[in-house]
Amino acid sequence: MRRREIAFRALPDVPDVAPGDNPGAIVVAALRSGGITLQSGDILVVAQKIVSKSEGRFVDLAGIVPSQRASAIAVETGKDPRFVEQVLRESSAVVRVAPNVLITRHRLGFVMANAGIDRSNIGATGGDDWVLLLPADPDASARAIGSYCATHLGVTPGVIISDSFGRPWRQGVVNVAIGAAGLPVLVDLRGHPDRDGRALQMTQVAVADAVAAGAGLVLGEAADSVPIVHVRGLDWWGPAGDGQTLIRPPEEDLFR
Amino acid sequence: MRRREIAFRALPDVPDVAPGDNPGAIVVAALRSGGITLQSGDILVVAQKIVSKSEGRFVDLAGIVPSQRASAIAVETGKDPRFVEQVLRESSAVVRVAPNVLITRHRLGFVMANAGIDRSNIGATGGDDWVLLLPADPDASARAIGSYCATHLGVTPGVIISDSFGRPWRQGVVNVAIGAAGLPVLVDLRGHPDRDGRALQMTQVAVADAVAAGAGLVLGEAADSVPIVHVRGLDWWGPAGDGQTLIRPPEEDLFR
Repeated sequence: MRRREIAFRALPDVPDVAPGDNPGAIVVAALRSGGITLQSGDILVVAQKIVSKSEGRFVDLAGIVPSQRASAIAVETGKDPRFVEQVLRESSAVVRVAPNVLITRHRLGFVMANAGIDRSNIGATGGDDWVLLLPADPDASARAIGSYCATHLGVTPGVIISDSFGRPWRQGVVNVAIGAAGLPVLVDLRGHPDRDGRALQMTQVAVADAVAAGAGLVLGEAADSVPIVHVRGLDWWGPAGDGQTLIRPPEEDLFR
Repeated sequence: MRRREIAFRALPDVPDVAPGDNPGAIVVAALRSGGITLQSGDILVVAQKIVSKSEGRFVDLAGIVPSQRASAIAVETGKDPRFVEQVLRESSAVVRVAPNVLITRHRLGFVMANAGIDRSNIGATGGDDWVLLLPADPDASARAIGSYCATHLGVTPGVIISDSFGRPWRQGVVNVAIGAAGLPVLVDLRGHPDRDGRALQMTQVAVADAVAAGAGLVLGEAADSVPIVHVRGLDWWGPAGDGQTLIRPPEEDLFR
């Protein structure tokens, strides 16, 4: 068997990101600062927050008037009614409401807490009332970063835009891919033989989510968090996909 | 910031495992074969299958008489009624039944497809009727592997027993930790400051699941799968836990 090793390295010295900054340029600068020469097959995992910030996806809750529905959910969850209103505006369906829990289907399809809206690590843009939405189109953001690298470094890496998600039956969050470009995100093993030459029951592997999860180990969440991770050594076949590929269609939702 | 890098390396030359083999001895031999000197802080991710095989967790479906309930679920799912019966015997609750879908709560607490019972990659123990159950106590299996390494190599690594799980709202499987010992499996960040000095909303990070997911990228599922992955560079604080720590208590199940 050939050697199989995959390494995740946090890139140092990534500056704070402001609206209008080009995430591609930030990635290229971070690679240079980290002394990394991009190679074919490399992947960059970029925290959702820096993409959202660069796109100026800030909302000032002070300007939000909660609907009646948002106010009712705010009572049930114990959350700020203006925050709930913003979550509803980002969502196509409400999945679960409970004390301190608000899970919705984001308009992009992700079932997640608070429609992915953040109140921490969003920078000193405003007061406590500012929140940060998901990028408008994370797959497009990933493609744009890949293209920028192609133009300026001569190599198109795989790119994953990553955010941390809770899971219904397991404790704690893990990072997943909310956007992706230039790598196989879902690899189909159906029909491949197993070690005994038997066809695999196992069907599809969520490769981009696994890469995002591994990157989460060096991304961090606290004061020493870094928003970009370089990944080398992924060895999977399959066509490139995007983050949407990883969303289970609502009609296959295991709870319908 | 200090350098943060985590590397996952598949160990070569792991032989087929038979009932009665010592997984600790298999791990130590694989480390030697891979030329790896274990260091403090290293983690070994071990595929559930080799632990189950070493424990002889095989069942011959030919000896199983399906109950009426199993037969009814077999019709709904299109699965072998004897297989369904064995799944039910391993489970404390049925979560979801649909064509080709049988999700239960395993008696150890994991909500997963088919109670984790495998029909692929289980070796040439018998005919097509043999299946392989999860290890009897995966946390104890992880501890035993760690102890064996301590005795024979002088270092106690973190150990994760890993299996691949589907997710209700996302396509594809990722690896998670069904057993663990000697590492922080769930790291609590509540109250830690974020980059802006603000307390994190984010609460707990499923570190062991993220390590298992990353390891899954080199473990593989098909004919060239390797059952042991060496992980170096995990840099998280927090007390050691076990795989059970990662199970969301049923009363916190997001679907109750």
